Amino acid sequence: MSKTQPARGMRDFLPADVRKRNYVINIIREVYESYGFEPLETPAVENLETLTGKYGEEGGQLMFKILRRGESLDLTAGERGLTDLALRYDLTVPLARVVANYRNELPRFFKRYQIQPVWRADRPARGRFREFYQCDVDAIGSGSMLVEAEQIAAVAEILNRLGFKDFTIRINDRELLDAMMEVSSIDKAMRPQVLGAIDKLDKIGVEGVTKELLGLGIPEGNIEHILFKITNKDFLADPGQNEIHKFSADRFTANNQMLDFFRESFKVYPDENPGKILAGKAIERLREIISLTGNLSCKDYIKFDPSLARGLSYYTGAIFEINVPDLAGSLGGGGRYDGLIGMFGKEQIPACGFSLGLERILVVMDERGMFPPELRSSSADVLVTVWNAETAGESLRLAGELRQAGLRVLVYPEPDKFGKQFKYAAAVGVRFVAVLGESELADNTVTIKNMATGEQQTVGRSRISDFGFRIVD
Amino acid sequence: MSKTQPARGMRDFLPADVRKRNYVINIIREVYESYGFEPLETPAVENLETLTGKYGEEGGQLMFKILRRGESLDLTAGERGLTDLALRYDLTVPLARVVANYRNELPRFFKRYQIQPVWRADRPARGRFREFYQCDVDAIGSGSMLVEAEQIAAVAEILNRLGFKDFTIRINDRELLDAMMEVSSIDKAMRPQVLGAIDKLDKIGVEGVTKELLGLGIPEGNIEHILFKITNKDFLADPGQNEIHKFSADRFTANNQMLDFFRESFKVYPDENPGKILAGKAIERLREIISLTGNLSCKDYIKFDPSLARGLSYYTGAIFEINVPDLAGSLGGGGRYDGLIGMFGKEQIPACGFSLGLERILVVMDERGMFPPELRSSSADVLVTVWNAETAGESLRLAGELRQAGLRVLVYPEPDKFGKQFKYAAAVGVRFVAVLGESELADNTVTIKNMATGEQQTVGRSRISDFGFRIVD
Repeated sequence: MSKTQPARGMRDFLPADVRKRNYVINIIREVYESYGFEPLETPAVENLETLTGKYGEEGGQLMFKILRRGESLDLTAGERGLTDLALRYDLTVPLARVVANYRNELPRFFKRYQIQPVWRADRPARGRFREFYQCDVDAIGSGSMLVEAEQIAAVAEILNRLGFKDFTIRINDRELLDAMMEVSSIDKAMRPQVLGAIDKLDKIGVEGVTKELLGLGIPEGNIEHILFKITNKDFLADPGQNEIHKFSADRFTANNQMLDFFRESFKVYPDENPGKILAGKAIERLREIISLTGNLSCKDYIKFDPSLARGLSYYTGAIFEINVPDLAGSLGGGGRYDGLIGMFGKEQIPACGFSLGLERILVVMDERGMFPPELRSSSADVLVTVWNAETAGESLRLAGELRQAGLRVLVYPEPDKFGKQFKYAAAVGVRFVAVLGESELADNTVTIKNMATGEQQTVGRSRISDFGFRIVD
Repeated sequence: MSKTQPARGMRDFLPADVRKRNYVINIIREVYESYGFEPLETPAVENLETLTGKYGEEGGQLMFKILRRGESLDLTAGERGLTDLALRYDLTVPLARVVANYRNELPRFFKRYQIQPVWRADRPARGRFREFYQCDVDAIGSGSMLVEAEQIAAVAEILNRLGFKDFTIRINDRELLDAMMEVSSIDKAMRPQVLGAIDKLDKIGVEGVTKELLGLGIPEGNIEHILFKITNKDFLADPGQNEIHKFSADRFTANNQMLDFFRESFKVYPDENPGKILAGKAIERLREIISLTGNLSCKDYIKFDPSLARGLSYYTGAIFEINVPDLAGSLGGGGRYDGLIGMFGKEQIPACGFSLGLERILVVMDERGMFPPELRSSSADVLVTVWNAETAGESLRLAGELRQAGLRVLVYPEPDKFGKQFKYAAAVGVRFVAVLGESELADNTVTIKNMATGEQQTVGRSRISDFGFRIVD
């Protein structure tokens, strides 16, 4: 007998899984469309040369490459002789390719969402798969903070509609981190690694980050300086909880107070200090995002967090991350990356995007029981029984009438004992059984059984579409 | 500059394409769900051993295989050293794997639909792609003709809801073809090839099929016999048009008359003739399908066609194919295949399925202009203008209010001249622009411009959600 499991690190989604996934995806889609984002889909397979060099050395190793076909396979020519295509590794490089390829067809400002799987030959682990969905939204062509503000609003609305009430959208600016590294005398060449270490602050704490920075050869004084800046208790304390600065309990006010306080802390440097200049610009941008969202319901979820770093090196401005208390990682994140989308062309194209972690959202919603109860049962509302071969056509006709009334209807697929038909109805989880038995067929009636209450009611065939099938506790 | 086209034979779907595809897919999904079919999704990538040998030699060559990763790559060990995974080639083998793997979790009768891409390294041509969607529906576990009848009804409903009125669902039975080959003394070993030739009748005509059968070494007399049976003008003439038999103009009646006539034609053989026995069973099954659908609206689309063969060798009973006058190929097809789903286990599992040709449906709908007009314009209904940086937050707030009223709203992403903002609105195809200019901001009003008529109307901010945005000619 053959192995029947899915390939390593990949998953089959049985109907109950697909229903949950589609529930979340549909809400994401609806909200993004209500914000004017347009759907884009790209092939699972890209030319290898499109992807090569875009994801660093690790990415290159984790890419699923496709064997050349037939005569083009050449064992003597190294990797180029073996492979010419690869599976999509993310949705950002395909977006950059699309933006370059359809310049003249796409609007000047291109807002797109894309919800498709990507593949990475990572070592499978709990919550880490080799095929997983990315849900990306990106706005191409504008450097205005309206873009950031709108994406934060959209993401907050998605989370609200999914039922999340306790999330935080942390925001920071990559240039503010640069500014802090500048004034902390962190060598330019070391900054990506320092950012990488800071990014782990949530997981390994100040002590862990210090150890890692020492390992990178950063002098202890500089480490203290930057860690003091980013982990300043004044910023990290919950609004209203801070004893020294008494930041407001209102998030919007507190965010502005923190930005003020932060600007203050750069006053000690001379005006021409590059770090001070960078910090000034970054703080202005953050202030603008906070101000633009000040009239929107998302404002209460936003928290300026100067320790937020985000691992990826391509961010150039604002960065975001969504967190909930019961998950170590994030539910999603993003930011401005003005240098990336133009990779296939000659000019720099401003861009800002947000990526939602579908798989993690599903895990948290499952653990918290956040899915609506109707997703738990079968796709169908009613099962219609089949009495015998001669009257089976009547069962199909009844099913058609019930569908006309907007119901999802399963017909038992063959004549059988009613006991078996009821057992099947219970197994698949329909809420009603419409019985067309000998007496019902003779009297032109249907007996409706409510599977939850056991209640039965016989009604005339002509009145069947008025029966309140939807009314269930 | 890098190449920015998608990989050979693959397609990017820009927003207008995705909207059309999703429109069709959503209708397919809704109808299948209303028939109680449940969604299934399987990984794009399968273990090579799962797929090997399932699609014949040609299939093996057209499969996209994935290069082994890192140390497991072995240039000296033939194909097994080079590849261990492959891209999904169809949705049927993954279904068989799923049925075997989740036996205890799946209901006794498993009705699933699956709409996912598959990949074949075919030579790209007009309408032939290397990545394309399959839309499959299959019912596993019952040999009853209720299954066939319901699938025909569901498919007819999908086509109706998409706007097709002129399609035919041709039906036949694989065992009726076997019976005809039996009484025409076609050698058992030759039958798959004979079926393959007959399957081309639509395209190459009687003469072409005769030539092909002669080429296979079938004696001329036998060819005449079988071709007389399957191309009998009595069966092929449109109902009501036939001069000799005067079949009814009513499809349902004509189908039954044709089955009667066909049974008659087997009377000349002795009762123990295996062909006559097979024909008797097949005719009974076809009669049952026609009778079961006799109360349903799909009955007028069904046409018994003894020349329908369907290429694939795995069919064991009823076969179907959907045709429209303006397409040479079919819009979909399927049938009963009781031997296939059990391939990963020990027992035979009855199964019947239907596959819709999404790409062809899209082509015909495009050519006929069958998509609803609203799909042609932008995803958004309204563009909100942005006057300046200070009042941009007001634009975001107005957008939020309009979204609350159910509209899809685009905010111009930065302060700019109104001329440019209107130009952009026209380019992306929104139907309304909500102008928040200097005077509107001062008066707490909004000016709504209907982009189709040019009409403008200034309304108070408080009454904005009552404005009839949806009313467009």
